[in-house]
Amino acid sequence: MYRTHTCGELRKEQAGQQVTLAGWADAIRTQGKVGFVLLRDRYGITQCFIPKELAETVKLAELRKESVLQITGTVNVRPENQVRKEMLTGEIEVKAASLVVLSAAEPLPLELGDPSTTEETRMKHRFLDLRTERMQQNLLLRHRITKAMRDYLDKNHFLEIETPMLAKSTPEGARDYLVPSRVHHGTFYALPQSPQLFKQLLMIGGYDRYCQIVKCFRDEDLRADRQPEFTQLDIEMSFVEEEDVMAMMEGLIAHVFKEVKGVEITLPLPRMTYADAMKKYGNDRPDLRKEWKTEWALLWVVDFPMFERNEEEGRWQAMHHPFTQPKAEHLGLLKTGDLAKVHARAYDMVLNGSEIGGGSIRNHTLELQNAIFDALSMSKDDYEEKFGFLLSALSYGAPPHGGLAFGLDRLAALMTGSESIRDVIAFPKNKEAKDLMLDAPSAVDKRQLDELGLALKK
Amino acid sequence: MYRTHTCGELRKEQAGQQVTLAGWADAIRTQGKVGFVLLRDRYGITQCFIPKELAETVKLAELRKESVLQITGTVNVRPENQVRKEMLTGEIEVKAASLVVLSAAEPLPLELGDPSTTEETRMKHRFLDLRTERMQQNLLLRHRITKAMRDYLDKNHFLEIETPMLAKSTPEGARDYLVPSRVHHGTFYALPQSPQLFKQLLMIGGYDRYCQIVKCFRDEDLRADRQPEFTQLDIEMSFVEEEDVMAMMEGLIAHVFKEVKGVEITLPLPRMTYADAMKKYGNDRPDLRKEWKTEWALLWVVDFPMFERNEEEGRWQAMHHPFTQPKAEHLGLLKTGDLAKVHARAYDMVLNGSEIGGGSIRNHTLELQNAIFDALSMSKDDYEEKFGFLLSALSYGAPPHGGLAFGLDRLAALMTGSESIRDVIAFPKNKEAKDLMLDAPSAVDKRQLDELGLALKK
Repeated sequence: MYRTHTCGELRKEQAGQQVTLAGWADAIRTQGKVGFVLLRDRYGITQCFIPKELAETVKLAELRKESVLQITGTVNVRPENQVRKEMLTGEIEVKAASLVVLSAAEPLPLELGDPSTTEETRMKHRFLDLRTERMQQNLLLRHRITKAMRDYLDKNHFLEIETPMLAKSTPEGARDYLVPSRVHHGTFYALPQSPQLFKQLLMIGGYDRYCQIVKCFRDEDLRADRQPEFTQLDIEMSFVEEEDVMAMMEGLIAHVFKEVKGVEITLPLPRMTYADAMKKYGNDRPDLRKEWKTEWALLWVVDFPMFERNEEEGRWQAMHHPFTQPKAEHLGLLKTGDLAKVHARAYDMVLNGSEIGGGSIRNHTLELQNAIFDALSMSKDDYEEKFGFLLSALSYGAPPHGGLAFGLDRLAALMTGSESIRDVIAFPKNKEAKDLMLDAPSAVDKRQLDELGLALKK
Repeated sequence: MYRTHTCGELRKEQAGQQVTLAGWADAIRTQGKVGFVLLRDRYGITQCFIPKELAETVKLAELRKESVLQITGTVNVRPENQVRKEMLTGEIEVKAASLVVLSAAEPLPLELGDPSTTEETRMKHRFLDLRTERMQQNLLLRHRITKAMRDYLDKNHFLEIETPMLAKSTPEGARDYLVPSRVHHGTFYALPQSPQLFKQLLMIGGYDRYCQIVKCFRDEDLRADRQPEFTQLDIEMSFVEEEDVMAMMEGLIAHVFKEVKGVEITLPLPRMTYADAMKKYGNDRPDLRKEWKTEWALLWVVDFPMFERNEEEGRWQAMHHPFTQPKAEHLGLLKTGDLAKVHARAYDMVLNGSEIGGGSIRNHTLELQNAIFDALSMSKDDYEEKFGFLLSALSYGAPPHGGLAFGLDRLAALMTGSESIRDVIAFPKNKEAKDLMLDAPSAVDKRQLDELGLALKK
């Protein structure tokens, strides 16, 4: 036991007690022959007075900031006029009787929290950057978001079920990250772009309500604020229509805001059609904070087109994904090829001008799913090879189902007021998809490539 | 809204109500011109009576088992002597007024729950195998285990923090799964074998108490009951010694057993030294159920050797891992090279003859960590290249810290009485590391390899 209390815990109620604290030296000051140490941990900061004799014994003046210290002493109440109200422990001071250096710090390569430090330096020494109050508050809040999500979902009978990371490459939309197989040379797993098909299979398997906070992977060129690996809260429900999913999900977000920020969100959330959003705001994720005079502008955008034109490749593609169900009244248009007019049973949740979640009702019959693949001019061989297992599953009794995925990094960034999702990820990658602290990706031994049956192209 | 109640919900209190149920046809029986459907979902089974006229209209005799049906009707209470006590809904029966086929099932390629079905067939059609009561109970219990873990850890101030999946290859012990970088040809990420170094960095970053339920990856030949990807509950704590970690962790497991199985575990858990276990039982994970006459035999094994001889490679290696701290009284032996006698500050938790968790106090100073690398005859260049970021972090103020990782798959298998961890994983791989349902790993387009700067070796 290295401590009796944390550095955020002592109050005047502990006056006169002997306590032991442990933490980082946030600041070390000497005043003549006595000294002060501000001892810091995740929970707060406590001021410790170091009397003359102890200061000499431990050579206080030579101790460096960010060293890890253990201090035992007595809790003294400060005079009323010296209470430091900005500190949780501002009522007291610990008069040290002993001080042990648990781990001495070398001079730091950066000043914690200094805004002039480049992001490259911060990322290279991420373990130091993580000590800033900003990062600690961000990751604490992110934890509270996921805890609130899981509590709400558990109470509503969702099961959290893990889906594979080593999955199958189905090149479609974004690029897959591949993982070569050592056992079967020339074959590859792919890291999942999302658990979309797995969650549909879980519905077909009868799990009724599924959730998972899960890593997803897309090998894209990292424009703007993207990461090669990112986190979704992934949701799927059986025997539902749009209204069921949307009611459950806006309830979830309202619960998270209440638990984490103490903010009451009025439900049901307002809705806007895609057409109205594009017409009035020029995009499908309008920021309505000014208009509504509110700090948090949450709404649904609904009634999306099912298809969009990929002009580069001269073909139609699914706007959401090809497992989305078209509106029943537009099914006839699939056959006449009037794809621009087909609307989807899809919905996005928008917060302060960012899409934080998107989902849809899925195709739960083989007829519907094949009609979409046909409309996209995918050859039967092609979609049988890629999605044969899904088509097979749909032929053995699939419930109507639908769901949604929230972008957890984005949601956490918005709720913490962070500019970048890198500020709510403990160990993010930079815009070149590098981890500067680990120095990853990096070269590997030739032996490793040999074992995989791979060679680097010259 | 497809249903008013689940198939496990109706009781005699709902007598006379009109209800709508939706689920799978678990059985369809005809008796003369009337019929019965047992409608099943995750929550239970409800018997529905199909009167003559409706049975004819929907051609009940032609409907296949496992089709997904929606049935609206009236709740009738069964006579006392016809109550089916083995069913949650055995007090009632629903007299159907309408029946809609939501999704018709083709004849199934296997009989659900038939013990004669080969594992290959079950895995190929995993979405059907997942419908068995056994799999549904297993995944429900697994969900309850992780929920109980997170509740306990949250209450004890642990933060769940995500660590990267795209990390750095540090070939050591098991083989890494590699992920080629498209942006930086010739370089690779590695999927993490565990978040060991990340969690130590989080302690150095001041997070004090960390937890994560996280996927880990080892490219091993799959002897016995292993999976290429597996799940750990990963834990790390700052300012702790063995007693602190062990008390917190046995409290966690006791909480899980209480919440999930209603079983009271007596704390503190018994302890046995590695030497005693080897001497008395011939292994370091003794099964003490018979001896203790109990269903659940939980204990700690402690006082492990720090090093073990790798006879194949003719060198010493860390028994746990090289970040484990040796016992203080054995530090001198590191220098004299008497490695066989050095003991580690490590501990394993054993349940019914299986190791379910293992951990240690870590090296929190550069001196300690370098002493271990030196003892292992690792060259300074080698460990600087692999672990430079950790050594750097240790020089800027690291708290004493330690932790543990539980094997979640194994724990869930034991708690559900499953023979294999494949029975507590929704989409497992077989012993050849293949997903038979997805057909993964699989060949990829040449274009994908070109983009990665890779070629298959002939």
